[in-house]
Amino acid sequence: MGDTKVELVIVGSIGIDTIETPFERREDVLGGSISYACAAASFYAPTGMVGVVGTDFPEEYRELYSHFGIDLEGLQAAEGKTFRWSGVYEDDMINRRTLSTDLNVFADFTPDLPDSYTDAPYVLLGNISPELQEHVLDQVKSPRFVVADTMDLWISMSRPALEKVISRVNMLMLNDSEVRMLTGEYNLVKCADAVLSMGPEYVVVKKGEHGAMLVSREGVFILPAFPIDLVVDPTGAGDSFAGAFMGAMAKADSLADADVRRCLLEASTVASFAVEGFGLDIMKGLDAAKIEARRDSLARMMAV
Amino acid sequence: MGDTKVELVIVGSIGIDTIETPFERREDVLGGSISYACAAASFYAPTGMVGVVGTDFPEEYRELYSHFGIDLEGLQAAEGKTFRWSGVYEDDMINRRTLSTDLNVFADFTPDLPDSYTDAPYVLLGNISPELQEHVLDQVKSPRFVVADTMDLWISMSRPALEKVISRVNMLMLNDSEVRMLTGEYNLVKCADAVLSMGPEYVVVKKGEHGAMLVSREGVFILPAFPIDLVVDPTGAGDSFAGAFMGAMAKADSLADADVRRCLLEASTVASFAVEGFGLDIMKGLDAAKIEARRDSLARMMAV
Repeated sequence: MGDTKVELVIVGSIGIDTIETPFERREDVLGGSISYACAAASFYAPTGMVGVVGTDFPEEYRELYSHFGIDLEGLQAAEGKTFRWSGVYEDDMINRRTLSTDLNVFADFTPDLPDSYTDAPYVLLGNISPELQEHVLDQVKSPRFVVADTMDLWISMSRPALEKVISRVNMLMLNDSEVRMLTGEYNLVKCADAVLSMGPEYVVVKKGEHGAMLVSREGVFILPAFPIDLVVDPTGAGDSFAGAFMGAMAKADSLADADVRRCLLEASTVASFAVEGFGLDIMKGLDAAKIEARRDSLARMMAV
Repeated sequence: MGDTKVELVIVGSIGIDTIETPFERREDVLGGSISYACAAASFYAPTGMVGVVGTDFPEEYRELYSHFGIDLEGLQAAEGKTFRWSGVYEDDMINRRTLSTDLNVFADFTPDLPDSYTDAPYVLLGNISPELQEHVLDQVKSPRFVVADTMDLWISMSRPALEKVISRVNMLMLNDSEVRMLTGEYNLVKCADAVLSMGPEYVVVKKGEHGAMLVSREGVFILPAFPIDLVVDPTGAGDSFAGAFMGAMAKADSLADADVRRCLLEASTVASFAVEGFGLDIMKGLDAAKIEARRDSLARMMAV
């Protein structure tokens, strides 16, 4: 750690999850947006994690972060328990109910960046309150490309702060139901246009198993999800998508439309692996060759 | 009519529809699967329509068929009223409720082909009972490529006959909920594999606004829908898709994987126009240049 300069900073939540699907129930799964996002990004670029864990955070999970090569200088350890979440997926493996949320140390989290992170050119503001997202924005000196994720909670509870963050980032990334809620439009083309009018140059609408859509002044890019035959746990798919995208962006270091599209292809590929197991189970066995093979396969599925 | 040899035969229903969307209600709209499918196919290849209308069928609608250049030798006129359907779309413009169905002359329809149609190399079995689909199959001499569409009604009510038809066609085309019902699988990759094990070399799963997926032994092709900003009436989207696909196949006259993919791109393009108006409102103003421009635009949205 510290030997390689961090090119991508990712801020968000770290949690210990209990997840129930129609097929299986798993306790104490390493989760939270930045566990997925940093792991996914780590395949592409030196990534720094900004988050908080409690004193109960298992050493094996910290070692897992290191296994991915994630820089942990920005990882805070606070007195108390780590954030915990539990939820149950319906039969469609898409809709889920939250059974419990215990914020614990996450309730008092302030994402202060180590000095070595403030020069990072790429920043991913994972799904935390827009006030904390803005606090991170205020610390980074001259980022080249900033992406913000968000969720329904902030859209309904912190809209003014969220709108301010949105106006300051290059790209907003959110799912179809969230963008409908944010913009008050139903049609996704209209939703995307409405987001662009709020400030960002890019919007990515994530559609789960149906892929994602990028809209910018360069036009529209429609990206499919890689069709997998067994979804084990959809938790973290969107975070893995965002992390792999930003890792690939940091690696490519280009805002050319063709490069942005290729980075989204990497994102879709890594996200498809993530849902084939619980937590980071599948990602921890991934390597560049496996990712490349599936990415090329996905590209062939899109070719006309 | 009759001067140009029919290369594609399409059989299915003709109806007069009353359609209600959240925005508008329209009475006496020309509908039924083959109105959409033949109109869409007519942009590509000489198409013969096999269906039945009643004595009340408006002359202007017959003229509209001729405007598209559809061959009407296979169109039967029977004593009685034309098939009528009415339905109402929910706010999502996807789910709909049928308010009434009056089969009228369609109840006694037997799709007998004119002699001039029996040599046609391309056949689209639109959504009618599998018994009638098989009756058409028994009349065509040596078709090069046959596609069958179907729906939930036949899956639940006429499964043995449907399975027989499926085993005799080259491609089954159906939507996601139907293929799940047919195969008993939820995951669409597994659904597609199950269909291929029933006989066809190809299966196309239509996913509405999310596009479609082709699966064959050549692999998977994922096709997006063209993102339009105002869906006026989704009725007939799937039929327009199927018709344009088969018209383009008849024109290309090639089963090479790349050509099949390109024909699906045409299908997605024409279907996107169809839903921008009621009935054939938009399609009747289309020409090759407009289709080509949108098709190229869609291809750019898919490019990596």
